[in-house]
Parts: sequence; C-alpha cells; structure tokens
Amino acid sequence: MTIAVTRSGVPGTNSHNLATSGVETTGTTPESRLPGGAGPDGTVKFVSIGALDLEAGGHLPDVTLAFETWGTLNADRSNAVLVQHALTGSTHVTRGASDEEGWWEQLAGPGAPVDTDKYFVVSINILGGCYGSTGPSTPAPDGQPWGSRFPLVTLRDTTAAEARLADAFGIGSWYAVLGGSMGGARALEWAVSYPDRVRRCGVFACGASSTAEQIAFAQAQTLAIRQDVNFNGGDYYGGPEPEAGLALARRIAHITYRSADELHDRFGRSAQGGEAPLEAVSLGDRGRYQVESYLDHQGTKLVRRFDANSYIAITEALMSHDVCRGRGPLREALAQAKAEFFIAAVDTDRLYFPAQSRELAAALPGNVPVHVIEAPIGHDGFLTEIGQLNTQLRQNFFA
Amino acid sequence: MTIAVTRSGVPGTNSHNLATSGVETTGTTPESRLPGGAGPDGTVKFVSIGALDLEAGGHLPDVTLAFETWGTLNADRSNAVLVQHALTGSTHVTRGASDEEGWWEQLAGPGAPVDTDKYFVVSINILGGCYGSTGPSTPAPDGQPWGSRFPLVTLRDTTAAEARLADAFGIGSWYAVLGGSMGGARALEWAVSYPDRVRRCGVFACGASSTAEQIAFAQAQTLAIRQDVNFNGGDYYGGPEPEAGLALARRIAHITYRSADELHDRFGRSAQGGEAPLEAVSLGDRGRYQVESYLDHQGTKLVRRFDANSYIAITEALMSHDVCRGRGPLREALAQAKAEFFIAAVDTDRLYFPAQSRELAAALPGNVPVHVIEAPIGHDGFLTEIGQLNTQLRQNFFA
Repeated sequence: MTIAVTRSGVPGTNSHNLATSGVETTGTTPESRLPGGAGPDGTVKFVSIGALDLEAGGHLPDVTLAFETWGTLNADRSNAVLVQHALTGSTHVTRGASDEEGWWEQLAGPGAPVDTDKYFVVSINILGGCYGSTGPSTPAPDGQPWGSRFPLVTLRDTTAAEARLADAFGIGSWYAVLGGSMGGARALEWAVSYPDRVRRCGVFACGASSTAEQIAFAQAQTLAIRQDVNFNGGDYYGGPEPEAGLALARRIAHITYRSADELHDRFGRSAQGGEAPLEAVSLGDRGRYQVESYLDHQGTKLVRRFDANSYIAITEALMSHDVCRGRGPLREALAQAKAEFFIAAVDTDRLYFPAQSRELAAALPGNVPVHVIEAPIGHDGFLTEIGQLNTQLRQNFFA
Repeated sequence: MTIAVTRSGVPGTNSHNLATSGVETTGTTPESRLPGGAGPDGTVKFVSIGALDLEAGGHLPDVTLAFETWGTLNADRSNAVLVQHALTGSTHVTRGASDEEGWWEQLAGPGAPVDTDKYFVVSINILGGCYGSTGPSTPAPDGQPWGSRFPLVTLRDTTAAEARLADAFGIGSWYAVLGGSMGGARALEWAVSYPDRVRRCGVFACGASSTAEQIAFAQAQTLAIRQDVNFNGGDYYGGPEPEAGLALARRIAHITYRSADELHDRFGRSAQGGEAPLEAVSLGDRGRYQVESYLDHQGTKLVRRFDANSYIAITEALMSHDVCRGRGPLREALAQAKAEFFIAAVDTDRLYFPAQSRELAAALPGNVPVHVIEAPIGHDGFLTEIGQLNTQLRQNFFA
C-alpha cells in the first residue's frame, strides 16, 4: 500500500475532480512513515488499499481512500479516533495546516472533546465519494471515469475498505469511532463488523438501520438526479453535468435536515428581497419566497462541491444501512459489539427521529442512555449543536 | 352563464383531457334549471362564469368551472354544502348516478354527516385543475392549450370564481363550506373572503397559511416537473408529457402525506417481491425496496389521472394560501369571518402539523376546539379516518 500526500489537500470547489485531476501530490511514502502522521495535519492524503469484492456482487480492482489526520499516533497506537463524515461531508473535520474551517470544530480540535493534542484523529472519505476516495468520477482501469459502471457499494463495503486503512496505520483497535447521520451509521457498522477493533462507538442522530421513510426520501433524491436531462445514465463526465437534478436532490434533503419550525422562524412566508411571489402574468414568472431562494442557494452550493454520481452512490450506500442484515434480530446483532457506546439524538430531528436512537440504545448491551441535543434546527443539530454534549463526551467517553 | 351537463361525468384516467376533448355534453341548461340539481347526482357538470382578473396580475377571459352536486337544493336555498377537494382531488366526493366510489364517502352520502338526503352538496374542481375546470390543459382563446401561458392563480382567485358559481345557483350563503388539506385552505378563504356567505366552516388538517416548509416541499415538487426533459416550459401538449417529473413530484408529496411510522410498519426495509435491493453489479441495476415500489406505484397512478401543469398551478395556488394577506394579523383577519368553525387535525400529520390547526383555532373568534383524528397514517388521515369525527360533526355542525 502506498500513501500519496497532498500539498494543499483542502477540498474546495469542484473538489469532486480531486482524484481525477485537481490535486498535486508531493510524493508517496511507505507504510512505515504513516504512524505519527503522513503529511501535515488536516490535509488530504491518499492510501491505496487494493481490490475489493463488494457485498452486492460488484468488484473494484484498485481502491484509493482519501483521508486526513490530526495529532500524533502514540507508541502503542492506542489513541486513534476515527471521525466519520455524513452524506456530503469531506475529510476536513477540523482545521489543520491550513486555516480552512472544518465541519465539526465544536467536536474536534485542540482542547475539544476529540482533542487533537491528545488523540490521533483520522477522517476517511467514504468509498464512492468525491473527496478523493475511489468513486464514480475516478478513473476505472480503462482510464475513463467509472460513471454508470460504478458498482453498488454498501456501508459494510465502506467499512471493510476502512479497515484496510487502519491496517496500513497499524491501528489494531480505535480508541473511538464516531459520527453523525450517515457518519453514525458508518461508526455503528464498524463496531459490529469489527468488535475487537472499536473500543468506543459514538452514534449521533442515526438509528440501527435506514427506515422506509429514509429510503423513500433517498429514492426521491436519486431520481431527481437520474431524471436530469444531462445525467446520461451516469456518463456525463466531459459534458454538461446534471446540476439541476443534484440541486433538487439537495433541496429535498435539506428540508429534511431542518425542522418545520426552524424554516418557519427563519423565513416564514417572506418574499425574497426584491422579488414578488404573487406578481406574475404567467405561472412561471413569479418571484420567489425567501425559503425557495434559500433552498436554491443550498442546491447551488452543493453543485459546486459535489459530484452527482457520488451523491447517488453514497445515498444508495446509506439506504443499505442495516446493522441486522445477516446477523439476526437487533439485540443479537448488537450483542456482537464490544464497544462502549455513546448515543445521541436531536430532539427536533424529523429524519432520524430520536425514537430510532432510543430503539438502538435500548437494544445495546448494558444500560446505554440517549443524550439529547435540544435545538429547534432539526437533524443538522448534530453538526451545529454538538457542543451541548461536550461535557458528557468528556466525562463519559473521551475522559 | 351556461351549464353543460355531462353524460357520464365521472373522472377516469386521463381525465385531465376532460375539458379539452374527453367529455360528451348532453346539452346546456339555463341558470333557472340549476336549483335542485342540473343533471344526475355525482356527475360532472360545467358552468361558465365569465372573465376573471387575477390577484397576481393575470387575466382569464372565459372561465369554466366543473362541479358535481348531490341531493336537492331546498326552497329557501339554505341547505347547500360546499365540499372542497384537496390538491389532486376531483369533484367526485361521493358516488351518485354511477357507482364509482368517491374520495370522501365516510363524510358525504346518504346518512353520512354531510347527508345528501338532507343537504344539497356541491363540489367544485379548483380553477387551474384538470377535472374539468379551466386550467393549463384547456384551450386559451386561440384554441391551443394555455400551457406555459396559464396565469398564476391564487386561492383567493379560486374562491372568487367559486362565488360566481354560487351566484349561478342562487345560493346566497352556504350552510357549510368544508375541506381538508388544500380543501381546508379553500374553505377558510371562503369564510374570510365572504363572511356573509358561509354559515359554517370546516377546516381539516390545514392551518391559516402555507408555512415555509410547506412552500419548500411544494417548490421541490414543481421543480421535479419543470426539470423533466419533456416539460418544454409547460408547452408539452401533443407531445410526450413530463410524466417522470410528475411521478417524482407525487413521490415527494406522498411521503409527506404519510408518517414515518406508517411507512415503516407497512414496508420496513423489505425488498419488493422478486427484487434484490442489494444485488447489483453496477449502481443502477439493483432491485427496489418495497417502499420504492410503492412510491413508484403512487407516481404512476397520478400520472394516469393528472396533468403536470395543473399540478404546478394548484401547488402554486396552495403556496399562496395566507388568510392574513392584506388583512392584518391573524386574529384581525379571522375576526372578519362570521361562520361557526369546526377545526380538526390528524395527530401524526407531519405536513400540516396539529400545532398549525391549534394556532388557527386559538385565533378564531370564540372558543373553538381542535378535534383530533388519532391515526398513525399521517396527513392522509383527514381522508381515511374522518369517520372518527362523525359524531362530533353530527352533534356540533350538521345537526
């Protein structure tokens, strides 16, 4: 296995091209250089983990995982913490060599609960993603992007790939694996797939499996992309991209990431500045409500930074989330895990309902409480309000 | 004004062509024939109500409303009840001359709370719709479908149009106007726009205005249609229609009409019979989860019976729902109404939250309770479980 170290390594706009063209590498390093950090903190690096046979029957002949690290792996390699990103997240959990803000700075950084002065923190771009790991936009063996040929990847496949990265680091077991939303699903799958390799597991705003409703919203999002006039069955690279479809997928998703009250309190029925939702001769002429403009903006922002095929691939991976598959009923499946668990939910989450976190906690071995983030925002509270749980995380988990 | 009486009159598949081609008329009748019912009960009839200047600035030179009636208007024209349909509803509230089932038979029919042996029941296809009223698929003055030229219609415009139909019947005031979801919004707008013409007003599963989240989900649905490769700016008649976009809009909507628990209890993570969601070499090859198949079916069903432009037109009309617009704060706006109100909500509704019904009730003059339908289904409970309120409706409203 080889590791390529990036020079800048901070995902920016159009970063879904990272793995195909955008990133200069300063060199590759042997595995022995890994412990303690290969390259500067908070920059994207790459590891080649070989071929993968996939749960659904597909095959990837040569898989690269992109990752970032912060801090120093200690001598006995016991202080490694894996922070798993959510659906459209990158590896940039917190800032490092560059000062670019990370997406979970309340949780990770110097002096934070996941203290980068104390722990060796790792974040891995999910297999199928567009922040450097092998995905639909990266070259297949024929040199062309995988596109429509990219195989169906499950969350278990991604976990298996990540285990090879841990091997490369010589990390026998993680001090902790944690994440929110899809990151929580990834963490949970780690704890059950590799019981001896996960000593603590944090699952925020995520249940034991993707529910019918989560699958339903996911289907709508993937269809929005697939029905885009530019999608071309997934083979759109080099031509116009399915931007409108991806932006629509994001709008649908974003509504579910927030709460009705949050949207109402922020936007109500206001018109977007300078526009008139109720002035129009023909139906298509009207101005926008503020909430529409806001969702347009969310869609546009994602289009600039994300690949539509990766959105589909990861969304379908998340649909596959089911810790019970092939492992019996929930209690039985979870009994395989040996980790200490930290379960948290956002009280207003209307996508990953707190009841799902309670169901998960109740089925775990021992007496596992559900820590509740109280925030009107909805699901995204696991990102924006995680600071509410810092004390509990410090006392019970990262002590 | 003239009324055209249909022979069959029951909307079937492709009924969005009703007004352009599909319906044979048996003749037109003068206004004087209206009271007591023009044509058989539960069949579609038409009334021409002339030109309409619209709130948003548009103009419709010649508006037709389709409607059905049941029962007999009494001598003093005091027993007329207007039942307003929801977003994709038709005028066929309950069965009549034909035995085709209606969509609200628990509520209306012989012996039901809205007793067609006692009341003269009227249901009007909303302006912009595709069940016979003037809409995007009906001919503009040039003989071509309105298509992209169809104007933005608000719920107030539809109410104004319906008031002219009441005029045609000589109905000075309705015994009651009621409806659920968008039908509730239409009923509420009647009570506030025409205080002296509505003696009782029933608003089920709907609040005083469309909220930011409702607007957001509505935007996603209209975009799904507008981004369909066949949409052609709305001028698709005579060519392939934006079926995929309309089906996607319906999927999104349908998720919001149900509850997470209902979907989970019905479908869980089951695979559709004979299909394997986790067997696929490439991403697009996999089988479906049962909930996906279910939503595919909901989409297909709607495509068969609804016009995509009408879906947009009515959805945008519903976005406009705001009983306060130009009328001051909520209490002040509602103080204009003189009706007795019956407010109901579904406890699991996650689109028209019970809190919105409570807010409406609390702002109404007098002490108005919120009747609660207890049903796991979500929003659609106003249709499927209205029978739970039959006693209350009989005691307090239709006594």
